[in-house]
Amino acid sequence: MSFQNPVFIPGPTNMPESLRKAVDMPTLDHRSPLFGQILHPALDGVKKVLKSETAKIFIFPSTGTGGWETALTNTLSSGDKILAARNGMFSHRWIDMCQRHGLDVQVVETPWGAGLPADKYEEILKADTNHEIKVVLATHNETATGVRSDIGAVRKALDSAGHPAMLFVDGVSSIASMDFRMDEWGVDVAVTGSQKGFMLPAGLAIVGFSPKAMDALETATLPRTFFDVRDMGKGYANNAYPYTPAVGLLNGLNEACRMLLDEGLENVFARHHRIAEGVRQAVSAWGLELCAVSPDVQSDTVSAIRTPEGFNATDIVTHAANKYGVAFGVGLGEVAGKVFRIGHLGSLTDVMTLSGLATAEMVMVDLGLDIKLGSGVAAAQEYYRNNAV
Amino acid sequence: MSFQNPVFIPGPTNMPESLRKAVDMPTLDHRSPLFGQILHPALDGVKKVLKSETAKIFIFPSTGTGGWETALTNTLSSGDKILAARNGMFSHRWIDMCQRHGLDVQVVETPWGAGLPADKYEEILKADTNHEIKVVLATHNETATGVRSDIGAVRKALDSAGHPAMLFVDGVSSIASMDFRMDEWGVDVAVTGSQKGFMLPAGLAIVGFSPKAMDALETATLPRTFFDVRDMGKGYANNAYPYTPAVGLLNGLNEACRMLLDEGLENVFARHHRIAEGVRQAVSAWGLELCAVSPDVQSDTVSAIRTPEGFNATDIVTHAANKYGVAFGVGLGEVAGKVFRIGHLGSLTDVMTLSGLATAEMVMVDLGLDIKLGSGVAAAQEYYRNNAV
Amino acid sequence: MSFQNPVFIPGPTNMPESLRKAVDMPTLDHRSPLFGQILHPALDGVKKVLKSETAKIFIFPSTGTGGWETALTNTLSSGDKILAARNGMFSHRWIDMCQRHGLDVQVVETPWGAGLPADKYEEILKADTNHEIKVVLATHNETATGVRSDIGAVRKALDSAGHPAMLFVDGVSSIASMDFRMDEWGVDVAVTGSQKGFMLPAGLAIVGFSPKAMDALETATLPRTFFDVRDMGKGYANNAYPYTPAVGLLNGLNEACRMLLDEGLENVFARHHRIAEGVRQAVSAWGLELCAVSPDVQSDTVSAIRTPEGFNATDIVTHAANKYGVAFGVGLGEVAGKVFRIGHLGSLTDVMTLSGLATAEMVMVDLGLDIKLGSGVAAAQEYYRNNAV
Amino acid sequence: MSFQNPVFIPGPTNMPESLRKAVDMPTLDHRSPLFGQILHPALDGVKKVLKSETAKIFIFPSTGTGGWETALTNTLSSGDKILAARNGMFSHRWIDMCQRHGLDVQVVETPWGAGLPADKYEEILKADTNHEIKVVLATHNETATGVRSDIGAVRKALDSAGHPAMLFVDGVSSIASMDFRMDEWGVDVAVTGSQKGFMLPAGLAIVGFSPKAMDALETATLPRTFFDVRDMGKGYANNAYPYTPAVGLLNGLNEACRMLLDEGLENVFARHHRIAEGVRQAVSAWGLELCAVSPDVQSDTVSAIRTPEGFNATDIVTHAANKYGVAFGVGLGEVAGKVFRIGHLGSLTDVMTLSGLATAEMVMVDLGLDIKLGSGVAAAQEYYRNNAV
Repeated sequence: MSFQNPVFIPGPTNMPESLRKAVDMPTLDHRSPLFGQILHPALDGVKKVLKSETAKIFIFPSTGTGGWETALTNTLSSGDKILAARNGMFSHRWIDMCQRHGLDVQVVETPWGAGLPADKYEEILKADTNHEIKVVLATHNETATGVRSDIGAVRKALDSAGHPAMLFVDGVSSIASMDFRMDEWGVDVAVTGSQKGFMLPAGLAIVGFSPKAMDALETATLPRTFFDVRDMGKGYANNAYPYTPAVGLLNGLNEACRMLLDEGLENVFARHHRIAEGVRQAVSAWGLELCAVSPDVQSDTVSAIRTPEGFNATDIVTHAANKYGVAFGVGLGEVAGKVFRIGHLGSLTDVMTLSGLATAEMVMVDLGLDIKLGSGVAAAQEYYRNNAV
Repeated sequence: MSFQNPVFIPGPTNMPESLRKAVDMPTLDHRSPLFGQILHPALDGVKKVLKSETAKIFIFPSTGTGGWETALTNTLSSGDKILAARNGMFSHRWIDMCQRHGLDVQVVETPWGAGLPADKYEEILKADTNHEIKVVLATHNETATGVRSDIGAVRKALDSAGHPAMLFVDGVSSIASMDFRMDEWGVDVAVTGSQKGFMLPAGLAIVGFSPKAMDALETATLPRTFFDVRDMGKGYANNAYPYTPAVGLLNGLNEACRMLLDEGLENVFARHHRIAEGVRQAVSAWGLELCAVSPDVQSDTVSAIRTPEGFNATDIVTHAANKYGVAFGVGLGEVAGKVFRIGHLGSLTDVMTLSGLATAEMVMVDLGLDIKLGSGVAAAQEYYRNNAV
Repeated sequence: MSFQNPVFIPGPTNMPESLRKAVDMPTLDHRSPLFGQILHPALDGVKKVLKSETAKIFIFPSTGTGGWETALTNTLSSGDKILAARNGMFSHRWIDMCQRHGLDVQVVETPWGAGLPADKYEEILKADTNHEIKVVLATHNETATGVRSDIGAVRKALDSAGHPAMLFVDGVSSIASMDFRMDEWGVDVAVTGSQKGFMLPAGLAIVGFSPKAMDALETATLPRTFFDVRDMGKGYANNAYPYTPAVGLLNGLNEACRMLLDEGLENVFARHHRIAEGVRQAVSAWGLELCAVSPDVQSDTVSAIRTPEGFNATDIVTHAANKYGVAFGVGLGEVAGKVFRIGHLGSLTDVMTLSGLATAEMVMVDLGLDIKLGSGVAAAQEYYRNNAV
Repeated sequence: MSFQNPVFIPGPTNMPESLRKAVDMPTLDHRSPLFGQILHPALDGVKKVLKSETAKIFIFPSTGTGGWETALTNTLSSGDKILAARNGMFSHRWIDMCQRHGLDVQVVETPWGAGLPADKYEEILKADTNHEIKVVLATHNETATGVRSDIGAVRKALDSAGHPAMLFVDGVSSIASMDFRMDEWGVDVAVTGSQKGFMLPAGLAIVGFSPKAMDALETATLPRTFFDVRDMGKGYANNAYPYTPAVGLLNGLNEACRMLLDEGLENVFARHHRIAEGVRQAVSAWGLELCAVSPDVQSDTVSAIRTPEGFNATDIVTHAANKYGVAFGVGLGEVAGKVFRIGHLGSLTDVMTLSGLATAEMVMVDLGLDIKLGSGVAAAQEYYRNNAV
């Protein structure tokens, strides 16, 4: 009976039937023109999803973490200075990666639950009159805390400071689910993966490089081979890869882009917002709080929900899995045990979401929390029925 | 986004991943021993599911309706007398089929919502002192009204009357979901299909013939070729079919039997009962009534729910499909417009069921019925969390 | 390692990836408009494949044998007179079915290996001045002997005789692989299945009824319910079936028609001819004879190959399966043990065919026949390389 | 009609039905115990396939190239000395990767077509009395030239020299197809991928680390994060990954190991040898030569076939794809245009192989080479029929 309930983890998401079928393809010669007929539309599709006219897209058989490494190793040299804020587990890990590659990270510690401190960035950038900072890192959506930051504001901070640093954005859990504007926001490297907004299995690191980031390839001396975008780009011209590509996933990505663009990106974002808002209505009806400190930073792809003091939020996840066969996300790092997470991105409907909320209610009541069965569901129902398309 | 919500029609049911994969198989030579390795375990599995030691199982590329025709044409001759009760659309259709094949049916009109009238059967059988009645038809579960009848009581009626008529049971929407005891109840022909309790796509008529029914083959003169069980049985001995078998579906049936027997039939029945009871708790919380007139005839595979006078119940089904992408069943025949149906059989979980109930609530509120959002869900949640395995 | 070799049985055929995926679909409400979006294009597609403007198409969850029964029971009454020739196992079986349904068949015994005797038909029809013969049966392609008959000639026989009998054609192993012209040939009922030219799993009986055959529905009194085309037709108007349809197979059929029409029917026929001709070149290089008595009756979908006197041709099939995992067809009925069959219809390429020929050669040498390894392959290679598209 | 012919590239290979189904799975929570039930058996299975009792297995969402990088970055520091031979494109690329990561490679230039020069290695190692060489690289099977080297001999070279350098082996196109003995040969890091002997889609880098290689983790200072085996190993203990795993591929790997071990590794190797030998018989019958300079270095997974002077071997690959829809491999690097390659590893049968040989013959004749149609096929047939299991 497993596999019948939807998952409510913040990725990998539930997959549409058509994407599973696109991925599950027979072997095809990846050195033949047939492969080019998959690769190039996939690259074009990603570019449109990123809302970019000028980016070069590169796709590695890897994950978002490999995308982070691609961003760093192709553009930087040992000792280069980086500016980054730590407001959750994923921003923390990218910072850690920088340090392991010998980069010098100026970390702005930020409360877990808050967004990126654009004003603080501006201050630091203005003070960096020698322009030693080479890159500003920004995690668009902190999957650990359910916090979406304002990337446009980070761009403004750079511009106000007249600072030439590049802007690298982790959009793993935002791209293709929430509005992302690579060109308008002046993003130099955008990073994502296949298993979130693209609704595919994990296995692809997807990155977009701005012309400025492409220029940086020439001077960067961090060692790289697998993640070298020059080798990758050279191959694309000949419908080829520097090694064996994940053809099925690329075929799925091609189809995913078609699905997203057919629905219309703004409709996709509106759908994610509607579903997320229903979840938030339920959380509110339960008398619980989000980890996100204010409405303007609430994520439309994942909600991290604080449980009462003294209660181990991780028990919710374990109990839901064991008793009801439903997967939620645990709290990570600083908020481990304090929050549980409901992922609501990718291939999800209002109806599926209601089953997740109903399950969360049963679990919380089972575990002794003072929650009224049906209360969150009713709040979400009211929202969904009034806001259905 | 279609195909993501579960269906709540009373069959075809939601299909487990593993059964879809078992059905979707490459072409295999159906005249080779490989085919026998699929066919024979499938036949054995069905026999166990029917709780029979002595039945011969026959499987046609057809549907339950073809199973009805198989039962009649292999055992009867034009003008033969049949006893049957009409208490819903499916019993009606079987009666109609009898008449179209020139059989003489004595119909006991029975309220739609009531079970089969075993006492009335007994009375008629006792009066038939010449034993002209050759077959008693019994629809185990009336899919149209959500009514399960007591087949054991029908058997007792036959026995009390000392009547030698055969007992043919339509178990299409009961077998493999609710208790069915072919041998204990003295069922002579049991009929079902692939798309209900076996959780497969439609496409197989599955019948079990008792030794007595097998004897009747010799004297029956109704014309038959496609549905002739003698041809079918002859083939089986050589791992063959009289024509091309639906190999993939048979492979799926084999796997379905394995799944059901691994879970344990009593556990399967208990699961269906639990899920159904949650639905009934919700119906009660909504202040609505089932079509089934009393608890002892409530079906564990489908609930037909009466809506208030003056309300067109079919609107619920249309609205649910159009606005929420969820499929319920309409009322049929006498109860068209008066009931809507929630199918809750096959591959379903408590969690999936809650999403169906939540949808039904939104729909009914959208259409102006006086239902409190979350009320039915809460009642079901309370039941499910207290009765989870 | 099974399932890796193509099959060379005369149906079910090898299936294209895209059709397997079309068939393997999640459960959909077959009473919803979504179903109509599958059903109606499938019906239209079949009509085009039959080259008919006026036929009504009906599709049953059944097989070609069920299609035969549909043809007979919907148009005829007990005792009606039928004209048919027996020139192989499948024409024999249709005649047998007629007899089992109480029809009076005038059988023209015809050598197995010869085509239908249109001249003999004409003679008999001319002699039937009272027009007692209601239907002429014609097996377009005798799958047992690899013989294709001239249906146009049968039509001419009817016309020359000025006889009003209907013409029923079994096109199970011809339609969608070899030219079939329902309207031009004045076919009244055309019968086929899903598992041959349509390259799908078995499970659909597909029939086309001419206006004249539709008129016959009103007077026919043979009992029928499952195969009643009136019930079926009534449902179609409402996107519905009289019982549960095989939705996945219909979806596959829709896609199969699209594939065939996209390739172009004449190209499909040319492809079958090319592949068949390669096989015939090989047979000739082996020094063997076809069962088909002359080139004009050689089938493009299956070749029945005579083996030398005293040799049991069935051993080839058994040995090929056991030692090489390749499926060929055995001889049936009169030619059992005298021929083995290579099916070459449906989703097949020149390259796949060569592997079948190479296997047949190894098998024949293993079994002591005087065949030169590579000889048939070389003949087919020469043909294929000179006739590739 | 595409996807019907098998591919004859030296990986990704043709995939068995059951592995495709294992890979194509619904989303599962990769932080749940369910994931551990996939991961750990997969790790254990790989260990058995490597014939190791002591190796730690790590599996990255990447490819063999990522496996090379994993080997180097986890065990070495900038400036470390490496010994390697260049005898083909893949050994060349691994050397290039070393250099890009700042390692100091002593390259033994070796003819393309020859095996690794164990004697030369021994000489160099003996001369390295200070033990500056940290690692010896060895490409077990040069996919570019169809050359299998003797890893046992390389181990003996190290032992004879009494040299403590580690031995890293690229087994991408050998492991799970040809005999590989990690422990017996004292391999310190073994590298492979999912898309060759494991018969899966590309997308996994699979590495085994000996205890000695594990010790080297502590001192290695090459920067690494994505490919850090310490993070990876830490996660495994908790059924987890340092980032999102490719769950479906891991499930497929688990199933692939089960298939291989059920068949028996020695049987798998024998099967590859048999199929390869048939190909070599064909090459010989054609009067052509292998790139591999002597029988002892002929690969059982890929044959690189030299074409006559003045002929562009790449035309064979292009023509085969365009005219016959069959994929062969082109020559790479030094042997580009001089050889074409037939991959014969993974999920392949004698029968499928014959179709590849038949195609190659047609192509060569089409292109004017002096080849007799059927000649190579006949030679392979003779071999296969005499050596079938």
